[in-house]
Amino acid sequence: MTFKHITSRDNSLFKQLKKLADNARERRKHNETLLDGPHLLTAYIERFGMPKLLVTAEGESTNEVVGLLQVLADVPTVMFTTLMFAELSPVATPTGILALVDIPQQPVPEQPDFLLMLEDIQDPGNLGSMLRSAAAAGVEVVYLSLGCADAWSPKALRGGQGAQFILPIVERADLENVTRGFAGQTLATTLMGESLYEMDLQPPTAFMIGNEGTGLSETLIKAASRQVSIPMAGQVESLNAAAATAICLFERSRQKAVHR
Amino acid sequence: MTFKHITSRDNSLFKQLKKLADNARERRKHNETLLDGPHLLTAYIERFGMPKLLVTAEGESTNEVVGLLQVLADVPTVMFTTLMFAELSPVATPTGILALVDIPQQPVPEQPDFLLMLEDIQDPGNLGSMLRSAAAAGVEVVYLSLGCADAWSPKALRGGQGAQFILPIVERADLENVTRGFAGQTLATTLMGESLYEMDLQPPTAFMIGNEGTGLSETLIKAASRQVSIPMAGQVESLNAAAATAICLFERSRQKAVHR
Repeated sequence: MTFKHITSRDNSLFKQLKKLADNARERRKHNETLLDGPHLLTAYIERFGMPKLLVTAEGESTNEVVGLLQVLADVPTVMFTTLMFAELSPVATPTGILALVDIPQQPVPEQPDFLLMLEDIQDPGNLGSMLRSAAAAGVEVVYLSLGCADAWSPKALRGGQGAQFILPIVERADLENVTRGFAGQTLATTLMGESLYEMDLQPPTAFMIGNEGTGLSETLIKAASRQVSIPMAGQVESLNAAAATAICLFERSRQKAVHR
Repeated sequence: MTFKHITSRDNSLFKQLKKLADNARERRKHNETLLDGPHLLTAYIERFGMPKLLVTAEGESTNEVVGLLQVLADVPTVMFTTLMFAELSPVATPTGILALVDIPQQPVPEQPDFLLMLEDIQDPGNLGSMLRSAAAAGVEVVYLSLGCADAWSPKALRGGQGAQFILPIVERADLENVTRGFAGQTLATTLMGESLYEMDLQPPTAFMIGNEGTGLSETLIKAASRQVSIPMAGQVESLNAAAATAICLFERSRQKAVHR
């Protein structure tokens, strides 16, 4: 296979892709993002079809990457130097393949049974992990506040491992409005709530998770129907926000499974 | 307050601390590590007393850092340039205080009721989050395989948020031996096990969690008493390893709470 080989950082395509990799506003403006690695790319193709452009790197490719390039032979492909490729990739060990894609929009269910609201989550890896847990627990739609990290950044995509292609995600949402508009119970996770284990999670439920350092805002706690906490052993103050999210979501999933 | 002000990267103390920040072998050799930020430092002091050395940075300090420096006035303190300080710190926004401490050893209970074994966890942030969940769920001792990231690296400490000061942690452990030596049930988390929710977790229990990409080794799966899985919604393959760990550990914690 031969590709257009680009070796200059002044190349306009490289500059455009670098902006997309680094900048949430740029991704929003063009409704495009970069997928890094065979796993994410394969997950995308299965649901949404071909990417718009492939980027590969000089040097050896894994069999998996070569296989993908063969399957995607009709997609325009460029080759960058190893260093240029690494500038576009969020991972320490480059995967050897990047794809430019449109950010997909999933339809939001009108009367969802299981919701997740995330307020001002800072770390894109944490955010990705939360989306991955949400998809695995059967959450039907995730709302992100304006202050949340971008769900479509390379790091959040890597953390999500394809969750972004399954879950409807509403970014820049007014969570207070979402809370008031939801017909089921809205549960604010705090350190002073009722025990998660004593709560009936079988009715339609929304979990609200706050910022890693400061937790949920007072406004959202007030808007919620109840506060919920995960009971913890003596000397520990709190859990990682992504771990707490996983525990809450899967406790509902457990109650649903047990009472089915 | 005035401190010894060091501005050269050739300074031998700076070079020694940089090695400790970057290198697990160096930390093991000296049984020392660096704590970053007021939260970790305060948690350490509460249990183990004074650090050996404090490092602060040029420029403004938060009230919290100034307060700590006053309380710790008897501890030798040096001030580095902002850039030198940033080289020692794992966080993007420097906290303004680092402490050199001995790595504490917690006594390992002889007949623990609740164990966690981690095999070849690569990401120090994931490892820290797992230790934090373990401490919060009441795990009594954590065993790490030789291939695990270092529990005492600045990134793992940051992820653990003080869990390393509460939990006995045995590094470079032979997990097969630990499995055979444990009197309770040993549960290997895989994608093909029995449902976590249908398992009686009230007897003494050890959870075994494998590498983020490849999962547990065949050897450990064979050594375990049973395989356990977290039931997941349709299209999702797996969870983040730290999220899966949190769900498993807190399911035991839930069963214990409900049946108390």
